[in-house]
Amino acid sequence: MLKNDLFLRALNGETVKRPPVWLMRQAGRYLPEFMAIREKYDFFTRCQTPELASEITVQPIRRYGMDAAILFSDILVIPQAMNIEVEMKPNFGPWLPNPIRSQQDVDNTIVPNIHETLGYVMDAIKMTKEKLNDEIPLIGFAGSPWTILCYAVQGQGSKNFDKAKGFCFTKPKAAHEMLQKITDTTILYLKEKVKAGCDVVQIFDSWGGMLSPTDYQEFSWKYIDQIVEALADDAKVIVFAKGCWYALNEMSKSRASALGVDWTCSARNARYLSGGNITLQGNFDPSRLLSPPEDIKRMVTQMIREFGKDRYVVNLGHGILPNIPLENVSAFIDAVKEHND
Amino acid sequence: MLKNDLFLRALNGETVKRPPVWLMRQAGRYLPEFMAIREKYDFFTRCQTPELASEITVQPIRRYGMDAAILFSDILVIPQAMNIEVEMKPNFGPWLPNPIRSQQDVDNTIVPNIHETLGYVMDAIKMTKEKLNDEIPLIGFAGSPWTILCYAVQGQGSKNFDKAKGFCFTKPKAAHEMLQKITDTTILYLKEKVKAGCDVVQIFDSWGGMLSPTDYQEFSWKYIDQIVEALADDAKVIVFAKGCWYALNEMSKSRASALGVDWTCSARNARYLSGGNITLQGNFDPSRLLSPPEDIKRMVTQMIREFGKDRYVVNLGHGILPNIPLENVSAFIDAVKEHND
Repeated sequence: MLKNDLFLRALNGETVKRPPVWLMRQAGRYLPEFMAIREKYDFFTRCQTPELASEITVQPIRRYGMDAAILFSDILVIPQAMNIEVEMKPNFGPWLPNPIRSQQDVDNTIVPNIHETLGYVMDAIKMTKEKLNDEIPLIGFAGSPWTILCYAVQGQGSKNFDKAKGFCFTKPKAAHEMLQKITDTTILYLKEKVKAGCDVVQIFDSWGGMLSPTDYQEFSWKYIDQIVEALADDAKVIVFAKGCWYALNEMSKSRASALGVDWTCSARNARYLSGGNITLQGNFDPSRLLSPPEDIKRMVTQMIREFGKDRYVVNLGHGILPNIPLENVSAFIDAVKEHND
Repeated sequence: MLKNDLFLRALNGETVKRPPVWLMRQAGRYLPEFMAIREKYDFFTRCQTPELASEITVQPIRRYGMDAAILFSDILVIPQAMNIEVEMKPNFGPWLPNPIRSQQDVDNTIVPNIHETLGYVMDAIKMTKEKLNDEIPLIGFAGSPWTILCYAVQGQGSKNFDKAKGFCFTKPKAAHEMLQKITDTTILYLKEKVKAGCDVVQIFDSWGGMLSPTDYQEFSWKYIDQIVEALADDAKVIVFAKGCWYALNEMSKSRASALGVDWTCSARNARYLSGGNITLQGNFDPSRLLSPPEDIKRMVTQMIREFGKDRYVVNLGHGILPNIPLENVSAFIDAVKEHND
C-alpha cells in the first residue's frame, strides 16, 4: 500500500538497501515554517486543530523527505484528558498548577472516554493520512506512564524529578494506582490512534533514566510492557527509554518491534545488551547536529556501519534542538539516503 | 596516624571488616546546623572564610560520624581564579555573566597563582585538619575540566549544556585550549590541597554523561586522566563521572584508586565494566533517602552484599538532596556501621 515502506520493513527485520531515517521532534522549532505557525497559534491550539497539527506533521517531510512522519502532538494531552490541568507557559514549559500529591488527588483523576476528550487527535491523524497520500508511514506516540507521572506529580520539568520519585518511594500504593490509570488511558488512546490510521506507535520514556534498574522495573517497565502487549497485535511498537541502557535486555524480550537508544550507548553496547536481533533506533547526539555538515555526514556513515544497515532505523538519540541550522539537517538526511555499503 | 583509616584501606584494596561510608554533599542543606550558618553568610563568604568552611566540613561528622570528611567548597572556585566572573544567585544557582564563547574569551583566562587566588582553601584545609584531630581522612575535590567548561561556556546550569557542547563541536581548537588551561590549573590546585593536608582527592565529572563515548574520550577523560597521572604519586584519587558507565573500563586502567558509580549502574554491571579489581564508590539513589528508614536499612544491606564489603566505599550515586529527613541519614549511616556479613 505505502509507496515507501522502508521504515516498516526495518521494523520487520527485513533486509534493506539502506536504513530508513526520521528525527525525533522533526516537526519542531528548528523549522522556519513551523515557527511561522507557532507565532500565530498557541500550543494547545496547534495540538487541537487538526488542520494545524496535520500541516505541522507534513512540513518536515516536504522539506527533507524523511521515511516516516510523526504526528504533531504532545505527551501531556493524556494527563489533560485524565482531569489534570496542564498549561504550557512560554519560555518555561509545561506547568501543572494542581499536581498529584496524595491518594485523594489520584482518586480525582479519571480514565477518560477517548473520543470525547481526544477526538481531535484522531481527526488530525485522518487529515494527516490524506496529506501523506500513502507515501510514507505515520507514527503516533504517547509518553510512558512513568514519564507522565513525573510531570503529573512534579508539576513542571525538573533536573531530577525528586518530587515524583519521592511520591513513589513514600506513597507506593497511590503511585501504582496512578501509574495503572495512566496505563489504561494510554492503551485506549493508542488503540484509537492505530484505528484512525497510525502505522506505528512509539512510547517515549523520557525520564526512565532517572530510576535505578530495580526501580525502573517496578515503576516504569512494568507499565510500558502492558502497553506493548496490548498494542502488539494492532501495530508495530517502538519503545524509546532515554538513559535506560540497563533495561535493554529485558525490553528486547518483549513484543516491541524496535528499541530506541540514546547517544551514550554505543552501537556495539546496544546490540550486545539487546541480544543482537531486535531492530534498534537512534542514536546521534542532537548537539552533534551543530557540527559542520561534512563532519555530520562522516559521523552518520560511521554510525550506520556500527549499527549495520539492517534492523536499524537512523534517528537522533533524543529530540532535535531548536537551534540546528537547516543545512545540517539536510546533511544528516542526505548521508543516510546516499548510504550504499 | 589516623584513628579511623577504614576509608584509606578500602581505597588501597585491603580487606576490611565493613566498608567505609561518606556522603557526597554531606556538608549540605539537609543539615539544620548548616542552614543556620547559611542564613548568616552568603555562599562565597562561607567558601572563603576558613573558620566557616572548616566548621561546615566537620558538622556532619559530629552528627553522624562518617568515615571521611570532605572539605566544604565549590568546583566553581577554579573558573573564578582563572579570571571568569562567577556569581551564586539565590534560588537560581551559578551565574557567569561573561561566559566563554570565543577564542578571545579563552585567551583572556589565566592559569593563576594558586596561593594568591585560592590560598583561603589551603587555610581552610589546615584548620579542618586541626578540628578533625587525626580521627578520619579529609577529602579535597575539584570539578573535571569538562564539567568546569560546561559552566564556563553555558554560563549557568542546564539540562543538556547545549551551548557548551556546541562550543566544543564548532570551535574544537578553542575548546581544547580552554580544557587544557583548566586542567593545568586543577593540577596545581589539587597538589596544593594535598600539601595542605588532604589525604584523598575526588574529581567530580558531573556532566560527563552528557557526552557520547567518543566525545567523552576527546573532551573529558583525556583531561581527567592528566590530573589523575599528575596526582597519583601524592594522594589517592577518586574519579566520579556521573552517567559515564560506558567509560568505566577505560577509567579502571588509569592510576585512579577508586571510581564513583551512579545508581543507574548496578553493582554487578559496575564490577563487570570496571574489570573487578578497582575499588568502587556509590551508588544509592539520593531520592531513595526519602524512603522510610527501615526500607533504607534493608536497601543499604542489599547494596553492600551486591558490591561486596571489600574494595567498596558506601556512598550515594550523586549529592544528597536538601529535603532528606535527618533520621533517614542516620538509618543509612547506621546500616553501614552495623553491617557484619
